Amino acid sequence: MTRRMIILTEGHTNPRTAKTASCLIRYRRDDVVAVLDSTEAGRTTQPLLGVGGDLPVVGSLDAAPQADTLVIGIAPPGGKIPPAWRAVVLAAIERGMNIVSGLHDFLGDDAQFAAAAQQHGVRIDDVRRNDEQTIATREGLRPDCLRIHTVGHDCSVGKMVVSVELTNALKAAGHDAKFIATGQTGILVEGDGCPIDRVIVDFVSGAAERQVLAHQHHDILVVEGQGSLYHPAYSAVTLGLLHGCLPHGMILCYEIGRDSPVGFPGIPLPPLAEVRRVFEEMANVMFPARVIGVAMNSRTVSADQAEQEQRRVRDELGLPVCDVIRHGPAELVEAVEHLRRKCLESVP
Amino acid sequence: MTRRMIILTEGHTNPRTAKTASCLIRYRRDDVVAVLDSTEAGRTTQPLLGVGGDLPVVGSLDAAPQADTLVIGIAPPGGKIPPAWRAVVLAAIERGMNIVSGLHDFLGDDAQFAAAAQQHGVRIDDVRRNDEQTIATREGLRPDCLRIHTVGHDCSVGKMVVSVELTNALKAAGHDAKFIATGQTGILVEGDGCPIDRVIVDFVSGAAERQVLAHQHHDILVVEGQGSLYHPAYSAVTLGLLHGCLPHGMILCYEIGRDSPVGFPGIPLPPLAEVRRVFEEMANVMFPARVIGVAMNSRTVSADQAEQEQRRVRDELGLPVCDVIRHGPAELVEAVEHLRRKCLESVP
Repeated sequence: MTRRMIILTEGHTNPRTAKTASCLIRYRRDDVVAVLDSTEAGRTTQPLLGVGGDLPVVGSLDAAPQADTLVIGIAPPGGKIPPAWRAVVLAAIERGMNIVSGLHDFLGDDAQFAAAAQQHGVRIDDVRRNDEQTIATREGLRPDCLRIHTVGHDCSVGKMVVSVELTNALKAAGHDAKFIATGQTGILVEGDGCPIDRVIVDFVSGAAERQVLAHQHHDILVVEGQGSLYHPAYSAVTLGLLHGCLPHGMILCYEIGRDSPVGFPGIPLPPLAEVRRVFEEMANVMFPARVIGVAMNSRTVSADQAEQEQRRVRDELGLPVCDVIRHGPAELVEAVEHLRRKCLESVP
Repeated sequence: MTRRMIILTEGHTNPRTAKTASCLIRYRRDDVVAVLDSTEAGRTTQPLLGVGGDLPVVGSLDAAPQADTLVIGIAPPGGKIPPAWRAVVLAAIERGMNIVSGLHDFLGDDAQFAAAAQQHGVRIDDVRRNDEQTIATREGLRPDCLRIHTVGHDCSVGKMVVSVELTNALKAAGHDAKFIATGQTGILVEGDGCPIDRVIVDFVSGAAERQVLAHQHHDILVVEGQGSLYHPAYSAVTLGLLHGCLPHGMILCYEIGRDSPVGFPGIPLPPLAEVRRVFEEMANVMFPARVIGVAMNSRTVSADQAEQEQRRVRDELGLPVCDVIRHGPAELVEAVEHLRRKCLESVP
């Protein structure tokens, strides 16, 4: 893995658009040298992204000469690179820096970038590139490996963060748990996984299943969810992943105040109880599963408001509820441990 | 479009595996010269595939010298070409024949095939090849174009045949209807469409939406369904298509006696009423839709048994029920006309 990253977020250094940046800083802080955004140069990432402490935001590559890798730090809808960023990518290549990108538009397939990379002897790592060509088989699943899956009412609500925090807390409690990354950011954080939204749709459940089969020597897998059954563009990603990883238990993730899917302001999202019902229904089409806890993202509200909401959802759904960043994931760890005991009891 | 096709089904000349062959013969009979299957040479297709009348099955390319195009006539799970067929494809190329394939494994990307095709000046047409890279937008849908979608309890139950028969009957009744092909066979029959199961999953709903937008100058679109929400490998294809084409009405297709998804003998399929409920539920997550009729595939039972089943399902679901091949699609045409009147009334 790369070691001295500068993360390009030019003009988009906010927690929503710069999801890749903020997660890399959160989980690989020691490998990040700076964030590159000329519109915020001179500041630090903490007030902008809520992570990173004194990590500097710089205005040019010159200001972070120790960086050896340029990471594209946003995940725009459709995954195209903003045209204005091309010059920065080329400049980085000319300095001998490797490029890491999670965009759908593969930078390595761009003739100009590819030629420059060859000339300067650097690597372009397109994290979403994959060659998944296997359909799901439903064979070989270990009954004594517990599969947990984070799902949500929308994309970009924190499913990856919840998955990582939960996995880390399970490990800290002595469990043999593994985070299964299914998106470009998770893959950069964990060092393995599958970019599930980039798989050919016939093979998407197969790709998720392969991740489970490859890692089920662990006791507990926490499979990062993608999108939402309620997202007008990405619901197929969500269902293919759900039906490929066949969870025993789901963690329902949501953001307080999110009332429409990202990019679709006119479309209302239903109440949480309805989201829970539909995810359980669609999971159970293939395998018995239920939602065992709720992870709320309370980033935009006060601690008091978060606590009120926590009580409200707890009462309404009768489930453990927490913000894994604000409260820590202890309640979810307990819910997973409880489900694991129940599942082990039922294994012959 | 090609004009003198020979369809390769070597060792698989049965209605289930040779779906592409039997549909091409059904709808483009005049363009088909022969079927190539050395294990059935000398017979005709009617007793083997139930279509084609006296269309000959031949044992070699030599026996059909007038053919100018070799079509791969099966759609195996995973879409790989059987190794034994390579020699036939190469021999066809060497005779100057064009190749048409709907496999996931693109024949045009095979170094040996590509070199031979170039040498002999022939085209390799991989029908599943696509470059869909647009997410769904939910913008620009015409409210006065009625969208009908065939869905099913499994794949390979006849959704394509139902879609074509219904479209043809609607046209015969004076409607401006259009069949929207979403699979390789439908595309070969109709001459346009999108190979939806081969699209990158992030773009699958967008690809379906684009088909609707491109053809909504017609009054009625009949969008061919794919797979099933109950299929362990392909449910993402089904949901992405459903949420991309946003039907007003669905035709529920099923085969009598099919009790497990193709390729998954251990997994039971639920009763039709449950299938209908789940499809309506998942459609309504995005757009108000309901099942307006049932298309049964009664190919494996007697006329008496088909009629009994027709009555039973009619009573159970309270919907028009027919086998579009055995009974014709008149009942479904009526159901579509009824829904069209209701939808037009609600357009401002």
